[in-house]
Amino acid sequence: MTTAAVAKEDLLDLSPGEIRALTRERRWTGGTEGLARGCAQANLVIVPQEAAFDFLLFCQRNPKPCPIVEVTDPGSPLVRLVARDADLRTDLARYCVYEGGACVDEPEDITDYWRDDLVGFLIGCSYSFETALLNANIPLRHLEEDKIVSVYTTNVPCEPAGRFEGPMVVSMRPIRREQVVRAIQVTSRFPATHGAPVHIGDPSVIGIDDLDDVDFETGRVEIGPGEVPLFWGCGCTPQAAAMKAGLDFMIAHKAGHLFITDTLSEEIAAL
Amino acid sequence: MTTAAVAKEDLLDLSPGEIRALTRERRWTGGTEGLARGCAQANLVIVPQEAAFDFLLFCQRNPKPCPIVEVTDPGSPLVRLVARDADLRTDLARYCVYEGGACVDEPEDITDYWRDDLVGFLIGCSYSFETALLNANIPLRHLEEDKIVSVYTTNVPCEPAGRFEGPMVVSMRPIRREQVVRAIQVTSRFPATHGAPVHIGDPSVIGIDDLDDVDFETGRVEIGPGEVPLFWGCGCTPQAAAMKAGLDFMIAHKAGHLFITDTLSEEIAAL
Repeated sequence: MTTAAVAKEDLLDLSPGEIRALTRERRWTGGTEGLARGCAQANLVIVPQEAAFDFLLFCQRNPKPCPIVEVTDPGSPLVRLVARDADLRTDLARYCVYEGGACVDEPEDITDYWRDDLVGFLIGCSYSFETALLNANIPLRHLEEDKIVSVYTTNVPCEPAGRFEGPMVVSMRPIRREQVVRAIQVTSRFPATHGAPVHIGDPSVIGIDDLDDVDFETGRVEIGPGEVPLFWGCGCTPQAAAMKAGLDFMIAHKAGHLFITDTLSEEIAAL
Repeated sequence: MTTAAVAKEDLLDLSPGEIRALTRERRWTGGTEGLARGCAQANLVIVPQEAAFDFLLFCQRNPKPCPIVEVTDPGSPLVRLVARDADLRTDLARYCVYEGGACVDEPEDITDYWRDDLVGFLIGCSYSFETALLNANIPLRHLEEDKIVSVYTTNVPCEPAGRFEGPMVVSMRPIRREQVVRAIQVTSRFPATHGAPVHIGDPSVIGIDDLDDVDFETGRVEIGPGEVPLFWGCGCTPQAAAMKAGLDFMIAHKAGHLFITDTLSEEIAAL
């Protein structure tokens, strides 16, 4: 078995299981955007069981930013439903470990951090519907410029649940005016991965004063003439709520380094 | 204030809140099918907090039979999101109280049973999409015959979660052959209230040997010539799983006596 690192170009034709295997072997530790096109990707949040009911309820009450793809059995790092032979401890490229809401480590593997009271939440990611937008001939600037999609924190409050509360976090894509309706239609079909936009146009309406001021170390793109910014609920929302709650311990994926499922976005699409 | 009982005919033009008020005053204690047309109705399951994570996870893993409409804050009998000024202790007409999986009481009010560790689950009910079927000119025999829709226990296992497991329970409606596709399309738009059918045609494929042998004391209807039985996930599924788990204590609505929300089915419809 070779252990040489692989380049992103080498991954483009690989299956989700093959990419997860290369990740597990540490031969690929880069971002997942654009990989395994057509397959749903998921944000990861891992919390102790004592906080798991509140967190599951928070996600259930806020399905646009927090659509649940799978929740693991307490204590088990294994994914049962949306991927085969997948292990949350090793199959993502980079993680953030939080204590009291602050990031204390960014390991490439969380085997040493795993505990038998942890529950893993896989939460839908908008990467999943980007293939559908591209297939509808709707260009995505952040992909053209090879950046992580722009993410912002809004002033729109989520429905709280127990100790979890906080503002909705959104991703933004500039869309040509004549394609706005089509972009809404296309993404509406994917409620398990955020679905339709939550806001169209003027960012100040949802508390975003400056589109250059992105959050979560994401990318920055221009809004061109004849383009409208469209905002979708973002899977960073539950992670932000969990950080705000100041849990003693939690783990999340590092931005841009998501869990790749075996599940086609079309398999979990609406009509 | 009069305290006279009211007849179902008197309720047909009333709002959900007005019907809940009459129920709370014990002036209406009948079934809710056909009331507040267009508004979503919900099954009720109340479990102790120590079982609530497993139960929420069971519902999340089995969204067709167990679509969650709202989960109350632990200890609170008040509905916050889908109805205004509603109290789960008084606003349903009849309840079943279970101990160790067996029904021990069928009260009209559960105020005396309420505890500060109880969590209420409102789970979508197929009554909610029947208005859409009728609006599409698809007749529903059980309504014509004034019966509770036929319900059966299948041999299709749900995805288990913790202590909760069991077969999917389904409701059945005979549909004219030429309207089957339309019935699928119409109900697909309502994933929060079971959505599309889970099975079409031959009942034996899902373990139903005799359509005359209904479960949960529901109604029985004929399949006419040129008609096909269509089966939808039923909100009795989580109740059956909770009974099977033999929880020390749980409460559910009595079949046919659902919680009427203020939320229009169209408000929570898909595309």
